[in-house]
Amino acid sequence: MNVVILAAGMGKRMQSSLPKVLHPLAGKALLLHVIDTARSLKVASICVIYGHGGEQVLSSVAADDLRFAKQEPQLGTGHAVAQAIPVLDESMPTLVLYGDVPLTTAASLQRLIDVAGNDRLAILTADMADPTGLGRIVRENGEIKRIVEQKDANEAERRITEINTGIMIAPTKQLKQWLSTLSNNNAQGEYYLTDIVARAVADGVKVVSAQPDAIWETLGVNSKVQLAELERIHQLNIARKLLEQGVHLLDPARIDVRGTLVCGRDVSIDVGCVFEGNVTLEDGVTIGANCVIKDAHIAAGANIKAFCHIEEAKVGAQSQIGPYARLRPGTELADDVHIGNFVEIKNSQIAAHSKANHLAYVGDATVGSRVNIGAGTITCNYDGANKFRTIIEDDAFIGSDSQLVAPVRVGKGATLGAGTTLTKDAPDGKLTVSRARQLTIENWVRPVKIKK
Amino acid sequence: MNVVILAAGMGKRMQSSLPKVLHPLAGKALLLHVIDTARSLKVASICVIYGHGGEQVLSSVAADDLRFAKQEPQLGTGHAVAQAIPVLDESMPTLVLYGDVPLTTAASLQRLIDVAGNDRLAILTADMADPTGLGRIVRENGEIKRIVEQKDANEAERRITEINTGIMIAPTKQLKQWLSTLSNNNAQGEYYLTDIVARAVADGVKVVSAQPDAIWETLGVNSKVQLAELERIHQLNIARKLLEQGVHLLDPARIDVRGTLVCGRDVSIDVGCVFEGNVTLEDGVTIGANCVIKDAHIAAGANIKAFCHIEEAKVGAQSQIGPYARLRPGTELADDVHIGNFVEIKNSQIAAHSKANHLAYVGDATVGSRVNIGAGTITCNYDGANKFRTIIEDDAFIGSDSQLVAPVRVGKGATLGAGTTLTKDAPDGKLTVSRARQLTIENWVRPVKIKK
Amino acid sequence: MNVVILAAGMGKRMQSSLPKVLHPLAGKALLLHVIDTARSLKVASICVIYGHGGEQVLSSVAADDLRFAKQEPQLGTGHAVAQAIPVLDESMPTLVLYGDVPLTTAASLQRLIDVAGNDRLAILTADMADPTGLGRIVRENGEIKRIVEQKDANEAERRITEINTGIMIAPTKQLKQWLSTLSNNNAQGEYYLTDIVARAVADGVKVVSAQPDAIWETLGVNSKVQLAELERIHQLNIARKLLEQGVHLLDPARIDVRGTLVCGRDVSIDVGCVFEGNVTLEDGVTIGANCVIKDAHIAAGANIKAFCHIEEAKVGAQSQIGPYARLRPGTELADDVHIGNFVEIKNSQIAAHSKANHLAYVGDATVGSRVNIGAGTITCNYDGANKFRTIIEDDAFIGSDSQLVAPVRVGKGATLGAGTTLTKDAPDGKLTVSRARQLTIENWVRPVKIKK
Repeated sequence: MNVVILAAGMGKRMQSSLPKVLHPLAGKALLLHVIDTARSLKVASICVIYGHGGEQVLSSVAADDLRFAKQEPQLGTGHAVAQAIPVLDESMPTLVLYGDVPLTTAASLQRLIDVAGNDRLAILTADMADPTGLGRIVRENGEIKRIVEQKDANEAERRITEINTGIMIAPTKQLKQWLSTLSNNNAQGEYYLTDIVARAVADGVKVVSAQPDAIWETLGVNSKVQLAELERIHQLNIARKLLEQGVHLLDPARIDVRGTLVCGRDVSIDVGCVFEGNVTLEDGVTIGANCVIKDAHIAAGANIKAFCHIEEAKVGAQSQIGPYARLRPGTELADDVHIGNFVEIKNSQIAAHSKANHLAYVGDATVGSRVNIGAGTITCNYDGANKFRTIIEDDAFIGSDSQLVAPVRVGKGATLGAGTTLTKDAPDGKLTVSRARQLTIENWVRPVKIKK
Repeated sequence: MNVVILAAGMGKRMQSSLPKVLHPLAGKALLLHVIDTARSLKVASICVIYGHGGEQVLSSVAADDLRFAKQEPQLGTGHAVAQAIPVLDESMPTLVLYGDVPLTTAASLQRLIDVAGNDRLAILTADMADPTGLGRIVRENGEIKRIVEQKDANEAERRITEINTGIMIAPTKQLKQWLSTLSNNNAQGEYYLTDIVARAVADGVKVVSAQPDAIWETLGVNSKVQLAELERIHQLNIARKLLEQGVHLLDPARIDVRGTLVCGRDVSIDVGCVFEGNVTLEDGVTIGANCVIKDAHIAAGANIKAFCHIEEAKVGAQSQIGPYARLRPGTELADDVHIGNFVEIKNSQIAAHSKANHLAYVGDATVGSRVNIGAGTITCNYDGANKFRTIIEDDAFIGSDSQLVAPVRVGKGATLGAGTTLTKDAPDGKLTVSRARQLTIENWVRPVKIKK
Repeated sequence: MNVVILAAGMGKRMQSSLPKVLHPLAGKALLLHVIDTARSLKVASICVIYGHGGEQVLSSVAADDLRFAKQEPQLGTGHAVAQAIPVLDESMPTLVLYGDVPLTTAASLQRLIDVAGNDRLAILTADMADPTGLGRIVRENGEIKRIVEQKDANEAERRITEINTGIMIAPTKQLKQWLSTLSNNNAQGEYYLTDIVARAVADGVKVVSAQPDAIWETLGVNSKVQLAELERIHQLNIARKLLEQGVHLLDPARIDVRGTLVCGRDVSIDVGCVFEGNVTLEDGVTIGANCVIKDAHIAAGANIKAFCHIEEAKVGAQSQIGPYARLRPGTELADDVHIGNFVEIKNSQIAAHSKANHLAYVGDATVGSRVNIGAGTITCNYDGANKFRTIIEDDAFIGSDSQLVAPVRVGKGATLGAGTTLTKDAPDGKLTVSRARQLTIENWVRPVKIKK
């Protein structure tokens, strides 16, 4: 099968400098949703017809399995498909999809493909409670005879509720011929793809139809209002699938998944969470309210409390994270690690049973097991020009408010006193401090409010 | 009245290792919702029929006022109720409830109980727009004659919209007899409780009905989809009650109450807040957006700003908390205390008019009145083995970034210089510091980027 | 045109000590919504009829363009309007609005005004699917003849679905006369404004009508339930307008705008954000999930990450803010400034390309360009009595965990070592530290758990 995806439209109503088909739905360009759906079918080639914002479209979706054809100027859907003629293999049918109709399912398309076979023209049609403005499917004795647009429809035709979604599949040889004979003798002065239906009927090619499972599969995006509507439909679909898999969602209307969220058994996700990229939550993971998690792997039984922000990080089993913990890229936490409030971890490995529970910055560090990183600890990983690593070995105890000036090493079982500025390595098992003597000023007088 | 609660089901569609009736709705096991509703009626005994995940069920809900009977194997609802026969007092009727139908109200049950009296069989029935799949109530001349299941119903019966919710109350003596004669001669090979209706009619016992106020009172939970639906219904019910009491909710669809939320007059709660356990908000309390508050008492006029996380804590009147304040268990703030951003308080008492406005950790501390705790202050309450207390007396001023190494005392009116590591008590009224001399390195050269 | 706004009602069902018309919708008192709508029309005078909570109403809305008349006791809507008689100019018509009906649009009122002209009585009427309880518009041959209240309506009249919203405009001379002849001979013992309709018909004054675009324009607030309903309608209206302007809203049901939100092109706003006061987001600004932003200006291309709290602040173009950044009043960030997690900025100016990425408090500071403020840095701006400024000049590097005891200056290109307590100015280009020697205690023994 050949697939042609129309993606040349300008999308003026989007009120944006981004080409319409590149607007994100669930974090992925509309066009990529369509391309990925096409990829999931058994296709020989996919050709994207681009136009407005062409360079951006090309650079955003380019891939080895895609061909591109430029439509310029843009003279209608028939004209758009015609741009693909040179790359369409006549030995197999051609499916026409739309880069701004993101949610058509592979299952619905497969039904259309199946009903088409190799020699029929098949149209994806839908029954609409209010079909106003859409092209109606005119049948005689059950057979599709033509598609009539709203403005050309007579009263009887306007009462028809079966509409043309625009998605169709046709035998390629005939399709090429039909396209070559389209006329733009109409109000818009455009070449309409729908006109091939009449051509097929005239040529004695049978015209058949299939229906999608839901109307939203056929909805296009022409404005931010419609984008927001499809975003919500898509998110509720994702939420429903998660629920059906057994995930406990506290509110299916308040979870956003922009990418892939893989959940084990007995996972619970509280309200207001956002997942981006590839996130895996293993068995028994609990996610508290209002978390933002991107490209992360959370191992079994870990508890991510409210207000956590996690990105490109791994969290070990049974770990306790947050609230208000920020795990930045390169964070790798082993099992039973505790990261508490107002703690930032970046590009660091922390071994099992270690803790950093309060107000700390751990960056570019390798931390052993059973280490206690006190409140206010900071790894000084940056000297203004270079970044260096901090090594903290097993069982070390880092006193509160210490600064570890990297590169530096805290030995196994070492202790740092509170407020230590560590500039040289701290030996194993001993107490290291850098501390001025405590001094009380006897005759000191408190500042008083200065009169202004 | 005897109450029998059926709670033996496996709940395979929940896709969980937790027994179905233990799944939480609004933070409380489904079964406990039903038990608590039963408790609110005038009952003589409550018997829970358990089966799948029995040990977990027992340990989760066990209480002095509950009896338990095990159903194993599970041969239908009639068989389940039969397990309770030994504990049912024949002098009073028996009400049958379901551990996975959590939202039936006491008011609806009371109507059912009232209509039953001592000698009638009363069924809670409901009128469903789409009754497909549910058992229909077949009446003749208004009298209930039998319940017919979907698959056994003829066309006329299928048009009946009055359905059996399963909840019923029966005279106990007859109930025992009817149960003992049930047959499992049906497709499922199960003993159906509904079959007692025909028995009652045959015995000349009058069968009557009552209706719940809302359909959701009769809905059961068999999947996470249904659990999420009931969670939302329940939360909207709670929100509506709060509104009716005069609470200002910025969005009734975005508040979650998992436990008891008691509000005074003129309380305002912004969007995205979660309340767990027992929370009291006194008159005039304002809760900002996206707060998580558990088991807390917030006194009159306190202002909790956005992103606060409060657990097992007391906040005094007119206090200003947050944004991003975390109050952990054992926090007790007196009136007009200010706790600001990125500040964590744990197991500490803070007296009136004191402030900790920025990036601080106050743990295991007793803080007096009018104390100013500077930014970055840390109480070093843990030496790696033991925890100790910090005492800060009235009117003390703790300079920024100080570490108070407990056990230690800061005297009344004492001042700590910025960056002090306090290891011994600081005397009243004086300035105490531990500070190295400030030194400028004359010939120092800035680090430059190392070539790699 | 004269405008009379009825705002004397008690609002007992609001369950509040705040007068009903002062309850906020979208952060603004109900009454102020109505006053602002009136102001947007071509009006000669606006007279507010106050009563319950009068002092509070006066002090909350007082302005040079408003007159006030007290209604006490409160004897009905006709009596209320009558209080305004002394200030009504007879040369122009009088429009009656309600202080608890906040969402009527100027467009709908203008239609009413237009249809009224100078000599007709015009009523804003609405068609309700369920008109129960509302006054019906009785017409004969299409002409309005009278308004009949629910309790006085006969069966035919009860089937009328056109209802009186209460909003009307009348020729002032006749209005005064009609009001003076109203009777309170009815069940409530009140003087009803609606009775003027019959007076007008009797006097041969034509009674006409106009309709609002939506029913919610005519809804009043009598309870917190209704307030919450109108708040949601209003917020969805705002969200829809933002979408139509091209703003990318991830969920239109989860944005709250309480004030004015002005957005440039290609602005994206994630879920759960709250905007208050006057906020401007220039072209290409991205707002992450769960932010709270009040009275702020965010320049083009700035990226505000999740969990930020911004108030009375300016953010420069291309700046990177958050997650978890708090910008307090008086913050002014130039272009390309980076403010990271758990950082608080207050009353400070930060010049281009400077960074404070981790756990810091910068208050009352003037910071130059390309400055790096290390993790844990604190400006000690308060000595317990006075606040002082900190100056950090261009290209300075502030080592982690430094305390800058204001007033103090860090010179151009100066470096502070980690953990410095800076009490005197740091000279340009050099390294300044205050550091105790690092020392290891050889025979130190770790604390062990004390037995209790």
